[in-house]
Parts: sequence; C-alpha cells; structure tokens
Amino acid sequence: MDILSIDSLNDAQIADILDRAELYFSGNRGRRSSERLHGKIVFNVFYENSTRTAMSFATAAHRLGASAIVLSVEHSSIRKGETLEDTARALNAMRPDALVIRHREDGAPAAVALIMDAPVLNAGDGTNEHPTQALLDAATIRQRFGRIDGLKIAICGDIRHSRVARSNAKLLPRLGAQLRLAGPPELMPDGVPPLSVDEAIEGADVVMMLRVQRERLEADLGDAPGEYLSRYGLTTARLATASPNAAVMHPGPMNRGVEIEDRIADDPERSLITLQVEMGVAVRMACLELVVGGS
Amino acid sequence: MDILSIDSLNDAQIADILDRAELYFSGNRGRRSSERLHGKIVFNVFYENSTRTAMSFATAAHRLGASAIVLSVEHSSIRKGETLEDTARALNAMRPDALVIRHREDGAPAAVALIMDAPVLNAGDGTNEHPTQALLDAATIRQRFGRIDGLKIAICGDIRHSRVARSNAKLLPRLGAQLRLAGPPELMPDGVPPLSVDEAIEGADVVMMLRVQRERLEADLGDAPGEYLSRYGLTTARLATASPNAAVMHPGPMNRGVEIEDRIADDPERSLITLQVEMGVAVRMACLELVVGGS
Amino acid sequence: MDILSIDSLNDAQIADILDRAELYFSGNRGRRSSERLHGKIVFNVFYENSTRTAMSFATAAHRLGASAIVLSVEHSSIRKGETLEDTARALNAMRPDALVIRHREDGAPAAVALIMDAPVLNAGDGTNEHPTQALLDAATIRQRFGRIDGLKIAICGDIRHSRVARSNAKLLPRLGAQLRLAGPPELMPDGVPPLSVDEAIEGADVVMMLRVQRERLEADLGDAPGEYLSRYGLTTARLATASPNAAVMHPGPMNRGVEIEDRIADDPERSLITLQVEMGVAVRMACLELVVGGS
Repeated sequence: MDILSIDSLNDAQIADILDRAELYFSGNRGRRSSERLHGKIVFNVFYENSTRTAMSFATAAHRLGASAIVLSVEHSSIRKGETLEDTARALNAMRPDALVIRHREDGAPAAVALIMDAPVLNAGDGTNEHPTQALLDAATIRQRFGRIDGLKIAICGDIRHSRVARSNAKLLPRLGAQLRLAGPPELMPDGVPPLSVDEAIEGADVVMMLRVQRERLEADLGDAPGEYLSRYGLTTARLATASPNAAVMHPGPMNRGVEIEDRIADDPERSLITLQVEMGVAVRMACLELVVGGS
Repeated sequence: MDILSIDSLNDAQIADILDRAELYFSGNRGRRSSERLHGKIVFNVFYENSTRTAMSFATAAHRLGASAIVLSVEHSSIRKGETLEDTARALNAMRPDALVIRHREDGAPAAVALIMDAPVLNAGDGTNEHPTQALLDAATIRQRFGRIDGLKIAICGDIRHSRVARSNAKLLPRLGAQLRLAGPPELMPDGVPPLSVDEAIEGADVVMMLRVQRERLEADLGDAPGEYLSRYGLTTARLATASPNAAVMHPGPMNRGVEIEDRIADDPERSLITLQVEMGVAVRMACLELVVGGS
Repeated sequence: MDILSIDSLNDAQIADILDRAELYFSGNRGRRSSERLHGKIVFNVFYENSTRTAMSFATAAHRLGASAIVLSVEHSSIRKGETLEDTARALNAMRPDALVIRHREDGAPAAVALIMDAPVLNAGDGTNEHPTQALLDAATIRQRFGRIDGLKIAICGDIRHSRVARSNAKLLPRLGAQLRLAGPPELMPDGVPPLSVDEAIEGADVVMMLRVQRERLEADLGDAPGEYLSRYGLTTARLATASPNAAVMHPGPMNRGVEIEDRIADDPERSLITLQVEMGVAVRMACLELVVGGS
C-alpha cells in the first residue's frame, strides 16, 4: 500500500498509525531502536530540498533498523532530461522496500507509485499533499489534548499553496475536529468561505500558522514582513482571543516576526512546534512499519 | 583484487560473478538481504554525478549488510586543489573495506588503486571503461537468452566516447558473442572497420543503443535530435531487420526520440532496459562479495 | 557530555581518548568493526564543506555499528532563513544519540549544545577550535614517539586563523609538550611572542605545517605561492635544522609547493600525514564511544 494522500488511508489505518506513533514516541525519548525493519532498504528521493523532512524519514528508517539511501535530485544527473517515469522504472528495478518521495509537481508521487512495486510515501508534492505532516500534526494534538474530536483548529496563512493545509483539511475533520481556514484573501483557495484570521483564532483550541514564502509576500501582497505579522500573523493580542489553554503549531521552518511572534514560538506552555518535529519521527516510523512491515 | 577494467578479471572470475549475480537477482526479487559483508564499509566516491550507478552500488552494499559512505566530490572541498593521489592516501588511511570510484578522467581509478590497500572498483572513468556495466549487460543477456556464446550483438551510437562500449567490446567477445560496433562516422573510434547502423542491426540478436550527449549532437553532427533518430537511432523499421526475437538494451538514462523510439523502449517483449538496472544491483553485489568477501 | 573545545575534557578523559584510540587504531588496521554503538544514530551536520572530517566521523560511527545521517547544509534549505537555534531545536527533537557539527562561525557548536540533549562534538568552528583534530595529532605523536611529554613541537603558518593551532595550543602543553608557534607576522595572533619559522623549527621534534588559504596569500601577504614556501614553508633546508629524527605533520589538505615541499610530504621516514588521517578515525571512535557509550 502507498501513502500518497490522506485519502490513501482508511479510518482503521489512521488509528493504527496514531497508536503506533505514540508508542514509538516514548521509545524514541528513551533512544531505543528496534530491528523490525532490519535488512530493509528505504530510498529517500528528494526532488526538492527538505532538510527537516529528509532527516526525519532517514532517522525513522534507522530507528527501525532499516537502511536509508538518499537521492538528492536537486544536484543530480536526473535533472538532465530523463523522464520521471524512466527514473521511477530504474528505482523500482533496484527493488527497494519502500520509496519516500518529495517533488515540486502535484501528483508526481502518484505517478511514481503507478510504476513502483514497493510502497510509495509522499513526503510532499507541490501544492497538493503532505500526508505524514498532517498525521504528525494529528498525533501531536492528541498527545497534548488527549483527543482531537470536538477541538476547534485554526490554520492560518497561505492556504492556497499549502500542502500541509490541504492534507490537514482532509485529516482533522475525519478525526472530529472543527476546522477553520484563514489567511490573506489573495492566498485563499477558491470556494473556501472567507474568514479573517481574527475570526479563525477566536476561541480556537489549536492555532496552526503556515510558513509564508517571502517571494509571495512581495509579489502577491506587496507587504513588508512586519506588516504581514500585524495583519495576518500570530500576535500575542490575537492569541489572547483563543481558548485559554490554546496550543500553537507550525510545520517549520518558521519566519520569526513574519507569521509568528518570537515570544509565542518560544512559549513552552503554548508552543508545540518542537513536539511536532519529535512526533514526526515517530509517525514516520509508524507509516514505514505499516507499509513495509505489513507486506 | 581490483576491478578496474574487464582485463582485471580472468575467465573464472567472470563466470563466478555472472553465477553469483544470478542468485542475487532472484534473492533481490524476494527482497532478501544477506549479512555476508556485515560490518564492512564501502566508500562510494563519485567525482562525476551518477544517480543510477551510485544508487545501485549503495543498494548492493546495503543488501549485503555493509555500510556505504558516499563522497560526492562534485560539491566537495576536494575540488579545491588537493591532488587525486593525496585524496586517495587520505581515503586509504581511513581503512575502508572497498572503494568504488567514478571519475571524469581515464585511468583515475587505476591511479587510486596504486595507493589503496583495499580493493578498488571502477564505476566508470572518462571514456575508458565501465566494467560493472559490461558485466551487468552480460548477465542480462544470459538471463534472457540462456547463453551469450554465438549471439550477434550490435552496439550503436557514440562508440568513440563510450566507456560502456569499450568494456563490452572486451567482455562480450570473451564470452563468445559476435560484436558489431556502429554509429555516426564522426563518433567511431579510429581503427574500427566502418559499419552502418543498418548493417549492424540486421540479423542481430541484441541491439544495444548508447546515450548521445546533446552537446555532441550539435557540435559534432550539427543534427537536430529527430535527425539523429532517423539516421542512427533505433526505429521500428530498423528493429524489424534484426533477429525475430531480438532484445533491446540501453545503459540509461535514455534520450527518448533521439537514440531510441519511445515504443521500442517501452515494449515489454523487446526491451531489457529495466532488467539491466535490476541486474546491475545483483552484479555489483557479486563484485563486492568477490573482492571484499574473498580477502 | 560535549566535546566543544579541548577545555571540555579533563586530563583523565584525554588520557582515556588517547588510550582507546590506540586500541581502535590497531583494530582498524585489521578492519575489525565493533557493535558497541549498535542502534545508535549520529547526526553529522556540516555547514561548511569538509570531505575529510565528514568521511572520518562517518567511518568512525559505522565502525562502531552506529548509523551516521549526514546533513550537508551547504546545499540545504536551512540556509534560507531559519535561525541556528531553531534548526538545533528541530534536530534535538529527532533524538539523535550524538551530533557532530562543523560551522563557519566561532561558537556555533556551543550554541547548539545549549539546546541539544544529546552530546555535541565540535568538528571545527570558524577560527575557534577543532578539538578532535588536536586529539588525533596528539595520538599520532604518541604513536610515533611513545610520548608527548618533553617534545618540542613547532606549529607554523596562519596561526591567527587556525582552529587546529588553537586546539593544539591548548592540548599539547597539557600533555607536557613545549610548543612553538610561528608564521608570517600578519598571520600571528595578538599577544603571541614573535618567533620566526626558522627559530621555531630549529631543534624541533615535530614540525606541524598549516594550510594557507590562497585568498589570504594574496590579500594579506601579496605573495606568490613559491615565495611563501621560501619565506615561511617547510623546505629541506629548514627541516635539516630540526631534531635528527623530527617528524612532519599537516592537517590536510596540503598545498604542495606552498607550505610544504613535495619531497618532504612524501618522505615515509618523516611524514606522519597519512598516519594522522588514520588516527583520526580511531580518535573519533574513541570520542563517540566516550560521549555516547557512557551515557
């Protein structure tokens, strides 16, 4: 089985991933490694730079006793003209036990999965999906609140271009959360009811801020970074309108002072940002075990 | 022992590699890993980008339980002035169990092997040799035809600059094949009897097409890609003149529509192209085991 | 515990590292691997290219049965704006068993260590320190002379900007050596008594030459490479004034013909340069075992 989208997973599989991740989370705190995937080979194919996600998947593979072989296409000969399909055929012929792929284009992991015999995990494709990020966000929220059902979750920022938002918009409501998407009007997807950032945050249990691309700031908004913060970012004043024990999330890397105030990012009572990274390794272990170990 | 050239290997060693590769090929299909090189360390030193060969060697090492440490010199400080010999002395002092090297210059692996105590495997040097590619080509042909002896094998394209052609021209005749080399006259080596691509393909059991560098296309041939296909490439018409059950090979990555027609590359009855990649891992496992395991 | 500086280590720890390194050195000659750090994960985070040190640490980790995950920030998304502290928080959240870091800025490893729960090993920071290099230099000297106490050791070159010199200036005197620092006046640190290269080398048991940056040669010295050799480099004439069985060292990579004459670099009686690289793996194994195995 592949994990290309949140839609790839049925409810039982999602519950299974979240439960396993919780166990691995504790194990990782004790720096325990497992041998469950001993002798397995995971290809990590990154057509787009992603230090954080690449390290997280490699760490997850190694914690399970597998080997991770990294292919960073950013600097590779693959860029010179071979089609994605031909590359996928070559990678498939090397018989990895799983393939993790990040790509700039929407749907590239799905195209690769049509060719691969081994399971394919989407590590982020264009503006489409980033399913393991949504899973780690869900696992983090459950870790903090003990549940997801019934929580009010605001996701704020460049919703239109965010694969993190798209995957979370599929996953969190399935787990019973009430989702609110908000951002600059220019950066909202078509067909989503207009909601201001202020409205989204008011009374929210979780406030998830998205990274704004600096290029977009200037091109689409004509804004200085500081203006973005005051108009759409997470400030102390806005957070004060959220639920009294509201938690703050961000997929990273953060633009401090742009989409989020420094003091909020660093508030140990509020910020789940490093907890998200920690849960990321555990969730990816659970995903790898589900798709590789089960086959 | 080193594998710098096909000439490095005696007939018994070649037979041994092909036999072991056949076993590993089946094992890899079942995604079985071995521990034969457990605890061994293989350095993969690539002075030239090569996604395919680098991944193949790393996968081979891991399938045998060894660790592969990659040094991609393309982006390394080594480029700033240290001599190849000094780099080799440093790498040797780290006591790897084997060193795989690709280099732009003919003879660089041989120069490094003079310094290294550990076995050196040439993963392609300039326009000189690429012995593991020839070995995987031979293993692929044997897998398909059950033998190599007596087969008519055409290799077509930029013979002059092809290390793949050079290694195959040494190996395949030793295994009893009748070799035909053909390509644009400007891209044929001196001293090779002139043969047109049409003549080479007629009646051939195997047609191996080589990748044409786009730079050479324009510089040496003044040709558009489509012209190359009609004049020297593998078209359906040309393939129709080959043996009725002729097989098609290509070391990859392919320029589709330049040296080979799309439909031929994708014809599951004819094309051995992904089989070559699959056999590549098996052959490299056999080579690593031969040079490391035997020491 | 961290190894950020030579000052991080007490005398017993230094003695322990040197003793363990001696054992690992013999083991590596026999290409024996250990499983002492089996299942452990070492992050190798290089903000500055360093083929030699990166390979050495990775080899050390693998020889101990650990996994090394490399993050080469030179080409990473981390360069786009995330603070070092935020990167460190993310890396820490992934729960590695140790973190090796090289960085252009003085003090970066110490800043990262404030955040990391796992031990941090400084693999070179700016012009500050390179403690494992000094330790491997000490181990190399002890291997050659059987002792360090009482030896006269000259370090010559760009002392001002050399983290190798700075760490050695802390370590070697603690081990009883008599240190002499010399170089072009423009490249000497403030407060160090002026000493000519000739004076430093005369009667020395060990002559350690430092790499000169070609940029500095021109900017600070206005010198051609050959002039540097005759004025400040290690020539046969200068070496003749040293102790009769003097040994020559260099942290590499060498500028042959600039800071050191070819024939001296290659003199098997005198040069310890490849022995230094070999001891480097052994010392890094000892350091990793000390900080990880002991926790």
